[in-house]
Amino acid sequence: MSEKFATGAFALEPIEGGITAPQGFTVAGVAAGIKKSPKKDVALMFSESETTTAAAVFTTNRMAAAPVVISKRHMAEFVPRAIVANSGNANACTGPEGMADAVSMARTAAGELDIDPHEVIVASTGVIGTPLPMDAVTLGVKMAAMELGIHSNRAAEAIMTTDTFPKEMAVEFELDGVKTRIGGIAKGSGMIRPDMATMLAFLTTDAAVEQAFLKESLRKAIDVSFNMITVDGESSTNDMVALLAGGASGGATISATSEGSSVSADGDPASTFEAALAFVCTELAKMIARDGEGATKFVEVRVDGAASDADAKRAALAIANSPLVKTALFAEDPNWGRIASAVGASGTMLDPAKVAIRFGTVVVAEDGAAAWVEDAADAGAQRGAAIEAAAKAQLASDEVLVSVTLGVGEATATVWTCDLSYDYVKINAEYRT
Amino acid sequence: MSEKFATGAFALEPIEGGITAPQGFTVAGVAAGIKKSPKKDVALMFSESETTTAAAVFTTNRMAAAPVVISKRHMAEFVPRAIVANSGNANACTGPEGMADAVSMARTAAGELDIDPHEVIVASTGVIGTPLPMDAVTLGVKMAAMELGIHSNRAAEAIMTTDTFPKEMAVEFELDGVKTRIGGIAKGSGMIRPDMATMLAFLTTDAAVEQAFLKESLRKAIDVSFNMITVDGESSTNDMVALLAGGASGGATISATSEGSSVSADGDPASTFEAALAFVCTELAKMIARDGEGATKFVEVRVDGAASDADAKRAALAIANSPLVKTALFAEDPNWGRIASAVGASGTMLDPAKVAIRFGTVVVAEDGAAAWVEDAADAGAQRGAAIEAAAKAQLASDEVLVSVTLGVGEATATVWTCDLSYDYVKINAEYRT
Repeated sequence: MSEKFATGAFALEPIEGGITAPQGFTVAGVAAGIKKSPKKDVALMFSESETTTAAAVFTTNRMAAAPVVISKRHMAEFVPRAIVANSGNANACTGPEGMADAVSMARTAAGELDIDPHEVIVASTGVIGTPLPMDAVTLGVKMAAMELGIHSNRAAEAIMTTDTFPKEMAVEFELDGVKTRIGGIAKGSGMIRPDMATMLAFLTTDAAVEQAFLKESLRKAIDVSFNMITVDGESSTNDMVALLAGGASGGATISATSEGSSVSADGDPASTFEAALAFVCTELAKMIARDGEGATKFVEVRVDGAASDADAKRAALAIANSPLVKTALFAEDPNWGRIASAVGASGTMLDPAKVAIRFGTVVVAEDGAAAWVEDAADAGAQRGAAIEAAAKAQLASDEVLVSVTLGVGEATATVWTCDLSYDYVKINAEYRT
Repeated sequence: MSEKFATGAFALEPIEGGITAPQGFTVAGVAAGIKKSPKKDVALMFSESETTTAAAVFTTNRMAAAPVVISKRHMAEFVPRAIVANSGNANACTGPEGMADAVSMARTAAGELDIDPHEVIVASTGVIGTPLPMDAVTLGVKMAAMELGIHSNRAAEAIMTTDTFPKEMAVEFELDGVKTRIGGIAKGSGMIRPDMATMLAFLTTDAAVEQAFLKESLRKAIDVSFNMITVDGESSTNDMVALLAGGASGGATISATSEGSSVSADGDPASTFEAALAFVCTELAKMIARDGEGATKFVEVRVDGAASDADAKRAALAIANSPLVKTALFAEDPNWGRIASAVGASGTMLDPAKVAIRFGTVVVAEDGAAAWVEDAADAGAQRGAAIEAAAKAQLASDEVLVSVTLGVGEATATVWTCDLSYDYVKINAEYRT
């Protein structure tokens, strides 16, 4: 992780350390027995600063889980500085008892951290409809409080469900000459789609950030990252993304009107912070798509030539959510007709006579038909076979790029997903049993 | 097929014969070599009456195939009395040559039948993006014209793609004392969702029906049948449902204002015809859902307590399209949390504290939580296990009923689908190769 990225006007460097890469945060992840396996299942994250600011975005699912309801209340009237999360049980569809259990989780964490219970964000992920085993949860939160440290990966592990690897990411960059860091952990594998779905992500930064601007930055970052991934079109009861800003970097407080020093070539701090946050969120989002349940391939879908941003996104998501496209990618079959059909059915504006489709660098369809249709019959069949072979070679990779041109405008969108394999069915047919 | 059905105010009897059960129609299905296998792939259907009326509904996919474009034109300005269809090739995304090929199919059929080419509806289904092999198609249409007869099943076979069985249905009922029949054939297995998707259905009746009323009746019937099935949420480039009314029954011409004789207990002919047509369409639609690619179970999803019909349909389709729900049904796992989550994410109005979920007759969730949550801990766990066992037994059947109450109104909807098995992935990963 030593390469540097140039993101627009500034440079940022990926670093180790996840959510504890930013100074001023301690975390823990412990195994409390909520999961049937002896894996970690309770995570605690704490910002040491009393002037921490916080932002969070929650699922729009109308069956929102108890921790979502409670955390929304805490975010609405207070400024949380701690996050407590469990995996193995979603505390969703659990009635009034579930609400009491979520409040109890926050109280236990607050008692251990000597803060107000309203300063705690509560999150849960796992099976829906089963009451939280509160003895295990309470014990886990207390154990986690005793083990608080800088092992970000333990918290990342403690929020995993069907994930096959822990997801963390951190970057370092300069804000008006001050070294600043943003870190994050995330979970998510199945039940993934835009608008926040069966995913949790927790982010930290040692920048000092004004609360309103922090919220706005988070929303913008989510729009180009977590809202641009899809595994199976499912949206869950428990999703949230939360961001704590502690201020330990020592830089000036960032707000929407922050301007950089006249000598900085890095742009103003506000837009630099936004770009760095979007970068971290996008990398975490891609990890979730890469770890899609049963995935054998990571798929990037790019749409251009759309009439509007919304249309571009709609078309890209239609392709990324299509079971027929995803099974064809699993089979490494350059069956572009399924892509054409998915786009056509999406309701997106397009010119059927101008649609073009590419797998990687290989154009398989143009002017709305197979790339070889215009040739004389025999030569066309041969050229078609060559194109098909070249396209198949592109699909043999672990990382696949699908590009579609709609031919009616200038708007573009990029979405990340994965293929649909036997193992998606297997994992989800066996999840509870 | 000897049971009688009472549908509202009248009785109708399922009979053999498919689209040739109504008098005045001849059909054929032949193998012309369009498919790689030696299976039938060209169907021809013909109404002998020169006063035939016709109605058709087409896919809304913006990449609509050439036969859809051509057939829409014919329906807009003429009254077709013949249908020619091929399987094995969709003639979609085939550019201007595809349009010419669809016109050519209509011309060949018209020449053989001695009618105007504009009196022919053209349909294709199969692989997208490959030019129609016109030598085979032309030969097939000529062969079919020579073999015209009353073997409805041959036409039903000739429109199959991944279907595992031919789908046909016919009913007999009385219209103002006159024996009347409606018959139909359909194909569809994958790429199925409402709004007409990878399905074809062709219907005939020997009733004499005024054209405008025929169109209105067909649209109403589709709304409660083909628009209420889903296999994988995909919508195709080629779908159509077409209905020819020949008038050979000898009854009076039916129109929207038709009134029955004063002695008939069967309701007015217009509504009787509509109900019979809706019945045939619904039975054909259920066959398509039952034959969903890789399906091991036929699933009926009922939603009640919705704020509006649209909301009820949205919730039912969200459940029926959810890969997580469908894989759980495949595993016979009464994991109702996934149903709650799918409904919650659908955008449908609901009261989270009133949502109830049933598998068959077993209530697994009520008041938005597991059916046993309210009990004391130990007794609750036991009752929970008993409920889970009872629910699992319901799911062991080949036919599964999932019911959801939303708790906010009186509207209802019923949708038919199937489970999602390993074989869905297998079929679609291997379809072209």
